[in-house]
Amino acid sequence: MIYCNEPLATHITLAHGNGGHYMRQLIEQLFAKHLSNPILDIAADAAILPPISGVPLITVDGFTVEPLVFPGGDIGSLAVHGSVNDLAVAGAKARYLSLAAIIEEGMPVALLQQVIASLAATAKAAEVQVVCGDTKVVPRGQGSTLYLTTTAIGERVCEQPLGMARIQAGDAILVSGPVGDHGAAVMLAREQFGLSGELCSDAANVFPLCEAMYELPGIRFLRDPTRGGLATVMHEIQQATGLGIRLQQQAIPLNAQVQVLCEMLGYDPYYLACEGRVVAVVDQAQADAALARWQTLPQGKDAAIIGRMTQNAAEVVLQTELGGERLLPELEDEPLPRIC
Amino acid sequence: MIYCNEPLATHITLAHGNGGHYMRQLIEQLFAKHLSNPILDIAADAAILPPISGVPLITVDGFTVEPLVFPGGDIGSLAVHGSVNDLAVAGAKARYLSLAAIIEEGMPVALLQQVIASLAATAKAAEVQVVCGDTKVVPRGQGSTLYLTTTAIGERVCEQPLGMARIQAGDAILVSGPVGDHGAAVMLAREQFGLSGELCSDAANVFPLCEAMYELPGIRFLRDPTRGGLATVMHEIQQATGLGIRLQQQAIPLNAQVQVLCEMLGYDPYYLACEGRVVAVVDQAQADAALARWQTLPQGKDAAIIGRMTQNAAEVVLQTELGGERLLPELEDEPLPRIC
Repeated sequence: MIYCNEPLATHITLAHGNGGHYMRQLIEQLFAKHLSNPILDIAADAAILPPISGVPLITVDGFTVEPLVFPGGDIGSLAVHGSVNDLAVAGAKARYLSLAAIIEEGMPVALLQQVIASLAATAKAAEVQVVCGDTKVVPRGQGSTLYLTTTAIGERVCEQPLGMARIQAGDAILVSGPVGDHGAAVMLAREQFGLSGELCSDAANVFPLCEAMYELPGIRFLRDPTRGGLATVMHEIQQATGLGIRLQQQAIPLNAQVQVLCEMLGYDPYYLACEGRVVAVVDQAQADAALARWQTLPQGKDAAIIGRMTQNAAEVVLQTELGGERLLPELEDEPLPRIC
Repeated sequence: MIYCNEPLATHITLAHGNGGHYMRQLIEQLFAKHLSNPILDIAADAAILPPISGVPLITVDGFTVEPLVFPGGDIGSLAVHGSVNDLAVAGAKARYLSLAAIIEEGMPVALLQQVIASLAATAKAAEVQVVCGDTKVVPRGQGSTLYLTTTAIGERVCEQPLGMARIQAGDAILVSGPVGDHGAAVMLAREQFGLSGELCSDAANVFPLCEAMYELPGIRFLRDPTRGGLATVMHEIQQATGLGIRLQQQAIPLNAQVQVLCEMLGYDPYYLACEGRVVAVVDQAQADAALARWQTLPQGKDAAIIGRMTQNAAEVVLQTELGGERLLPELEDEPLPRIC
């Protein structure tokens, strides 16, 4: 720490990205302060990636959520959970993260401190280490305060193969909790509808939910329904397998506040993003066992069996509460708010 | 390929980022088309990272260069070279990349095709594979057409330790070619001074230059002088070692066009970024051998010994052509254009 006696500016300037004195000060006093660990070396061009036991998996995700802070999370916690979760549903436990920040000139330094502190705390809780980082500053009006990108590397811990190719007709479809909370919470926080409520993002580390399934006989596929929500995951499965999907509307868990908000604003909750839920496809014979595994976890207490894969029609059908049916079309150009 | 019969739109819309139909079409028809390889699976959440022989190294870099296309390169080629080079100066050969794109609504799809095709060709030439990717679309006015982030993972091939901690008084400082070409070329391309010329970015893969040094006895440290240029690398070394640095102005290679441009605009070329040069610090006894190694390579034909580490004064001194001296101060808030 070279610059420790010189206080940071209150707002980010272009000089914080030019490679010189102020950039080093920002990295040392803010990023390194929160993210410091034995692997991260802010003076080096690269870090040694510690050995991964077993098969290493890798994923990358960019984060552009607005607002940066929302009920239940912020861009810092989301940037950890997003990448950790992509590995979890692929059967792996995240170990290491790279982090790149694109900061807009004028960002309050206190806000940057807040989200990087949150990122650090979330990483610690998820048992991942940030091993390398980069910062860029873009001129005012060419960003949205802060964009983050994380690449996660982890080790496969699920010994069973997972993938859409393993899905069969008759398989059961489960979800680990109410859908759409994240999308609805961010929308509310962003759009300032004048509505107040206790609606909170579901953003969380889904590794425990996934781990509970890794040893379940007959587990076929796991996915976190983020952008495009539950309906979009259903369409990806339908298109990859050529099978049909039949969901029971009354079985799909939905928070009352999300339902009300969607009715008011004309959104379909099945297209709203989750950031802490998991969809599982399992052998029908194991559906109850899968549900029981989830329901014993705090994160899975509202888990439900919501439908099944069918042989006949290559479409996603929702059986409504009144006994009718409607198709859930593939998401096209509905303008949803930026939620991740 | 599911959507191959449906033509892509001419411009990026928010729907290309919403997780649904148009996003999949963009990924399949544009990103996967150029970047396809056996590891990249656009339908999966994560990819298996193939085994790395030897010690794995990791680095991350964000790219916000404006304009996206400049003489000698574009954001796509830069996004490969930037991360590949960070590994090269750390003694490693890059093998795998993750890629995240933050695209501004309204970006011409043809321009995105152009830079992703360039990225793919650059990756192929550098023998690296893109193993996972992510795209986000932000509303018009909240980006700068395109930002990219790459994380590179590679294997250490330099058996000697490299690092600032190994630098000693008396060591020689070399640079592999003229400095400031990239910064000057991007500035010219961006600012539309009405100047025309043949000024071209030096952006390139510096692995061959670095590899030439890996087996040199007495190699201490390698660094690519990107943001903040040669002077900033000198300051980082000076501050990390506590030693002084004495550079010979007439020894530092400089293209005449860069010199003229800097004189006209009042920039100091030693602070302008390079994207294809390497600074090496070597044992004084090996300086000539190091120079000879570089000068046999096309990329190193203008390499030079430009100065030395000194015991006495903890400052960076430039001996001018007329026999005088001036201090090269640490870069503070000079507003340089975004060059990487």
